[in-house]
Amino acid sequence: SAKFGLDVFRPHKVVRTVSECQDESFDYVLITLKALPEVYNVADIIAPVIKDEKTTIVLIQNGLGIEEPIVERFPNNPLISIVAYIGVSQHEPGKITMIGGESLVVGKYLKAQCSSDEQRSKFVEYLNKGGVDVQVVEDIEKVRWQKLFWNATFSPVCTLTGMNTTELLSNEEATKAVKDLMHEVIMIAGAEGYDYDEEQQVKTMLARTEETALNYKPSMQLDRENGRPMEIEVILGCPLKRAKARGLSVPRLEMTHSICSAANQHILNGKAKP
Amino acid sequence: SAKFGLDVFRPHKVVRTVSECQDESFDYVLITLKALPEVYNVADIIAPVIKDEKTTIVLIQNGLGIEEPIVERFPNNPLISIVAYIGVSQHEPGKITMIGGESLVVGKYLKAQCSSDEQRSKFVEYLNKGGVDVQVVEDIEKVRWQKLFWNATFSPVCTLTGMNTTELLSNEEATKAVKDLMHEVIMIAGAEGYDYDEEQQVKTMLARTEETALNYKPSMQLDRENGRPMEIEVILGCPLKRAKARGLSVPRLEMTHSICSAANQHILNGKAKP
Repeated sequence: SAKFGLDVFRPHKVVRTVSECQDESFDYVLITLKALPEVYNVADIIAPVIKDEKTTIVLIQNGLGIEEPIVERFPNNPLISIVAYIGVSQHEPGKITMIGGESLVVGKYLKAQCSSDEQRSKFVEYLNKGGVDVQVVEDIEKVRWQKLFWNATFSPVCTLTGMNTTELLSNEEATKAVKDLMHEVIMIAGAEGYDYDEEQQVKTMLARTEETALNYKPSMQLDRENGRPMEIEVILGCPLKRAKARGLSVPRLEMTHSICSAANQHILNGKAKP
Repeated sequence: SAKFGLDVFRPHKVVRTVSECQDESFDYVLITLKALPEVYNVADIIAPVIKDEKTTIVLIQNGLGIEEPIVERFPNNPLISIVAYIGVSQHEPGKITMIGGESLVVGKYLKAQCSSDEQRSKFVEYLNKGGVDVQVVEDIEKVRWQKLFWNATFSPVCTLTGMNTTELLSNEEATKAVKDLMHEVIMIAGAEGYDYDEEQQVKTMLARTEETALNYKPSMQLDRENGRPMEIEVILGCPLKRAKARGLSVPRLEMTHSICSAANQHILNGKAKP
């Protein structure tokens, strides 16, 4: 990393399963797993160490709706929800190269049932001490939606066409697919109370990709290429569910979700060859 | 072939380019090329041997709208349009195994500008003499549409998900994608005057696939897997163009076309690895 230098991170303790440390007590439990509700249940995984209401749960995960199952299961634990923009690659297990910057957007999950204000300030302090680029926002879901404008459009189109971002932007039909899909996602966000200007957002997302993410393959695409499960539900499934709950017509998102969801099942069934 | 036995076909003459036999005169010119208007122009290819109005042009090709450029270029030549259902595989160059039956549907292209009645009867006679299963229909486009109900739905969904027909039918989301897409394609056919019962057609197509095409990979999918160009324009592009000309809203077909068309361009650019 240009910013953090060459370093080896040696964890204080490594366990195979969370149950192995259920006798300990934690101030914070950080979840940085891929968001794969199709594959595992994060609430189940962390349950052994969330014994009382003291432990703060910190989600550093992609997608939308990831907080819901946590709030439902642990309504009285403080929750911190973080959207991460980090430019790293793992070329071999445990060897991580940081190529871009890092930015953690820390926010409040407004639908949470208990306050996390104190725990959030303290956590942000820790991040600042570590020199991390931190942004604090009032409503994390607003940020999750905006990240989704990119992730629910560029990611599936790259994944399904095989193109990276540069190839996509130089192809008229692929760019059209991204734009058409993005209009639907922005419309859903609007119905949820996040009133983004459609034309402006589409322009911003395309321009930002040109500027900062050329020759880039989204993680969804890399996951598919490597035969790993993709984060379809939290990126496409959740916005689709919200659109349906409001009776919105989003045929492009629905089609894209069906196809990506089936492709994901194909991977989970072990039928897709990497 | 169970029906035609083990045989070696030795052509009377093989040439590299059509120009090499431009001094000869032909009663029939048969075109059995993949329908790839994105890659080559069939009218250009055959032009050297279509010198007078005597030559009948026979198209045995997939998709919709393949007759248009031929009629436009050779308005005074009789045209025979054939939809083929043939269960063969080519495992290595020139070695062809016939696994299913063969059925050629020979019809009239109603938008043709000159009669082909006499040439069609004669051609059907030749086919019958060879023992081929032939069906004669009045309007070939009606048959092309019905084949499209399968080809414009199962083919892209198999291609994009990586599933074969059996895997597709056992997956709820993939089946949903096929059905949703099929409703749009049947609606376009309806607007063009081919009034198929939507629910009935969807049921028929799914049942027929269960019965006769299990564990099958459509040619579009095999083409992609092998890094060859796919027949996107005649299977998805042409019905889309017709829908747009009539002002119909077909967002699922539009999305699927954009993505498949971009995937095809990726192959044509030599970027997709087989």
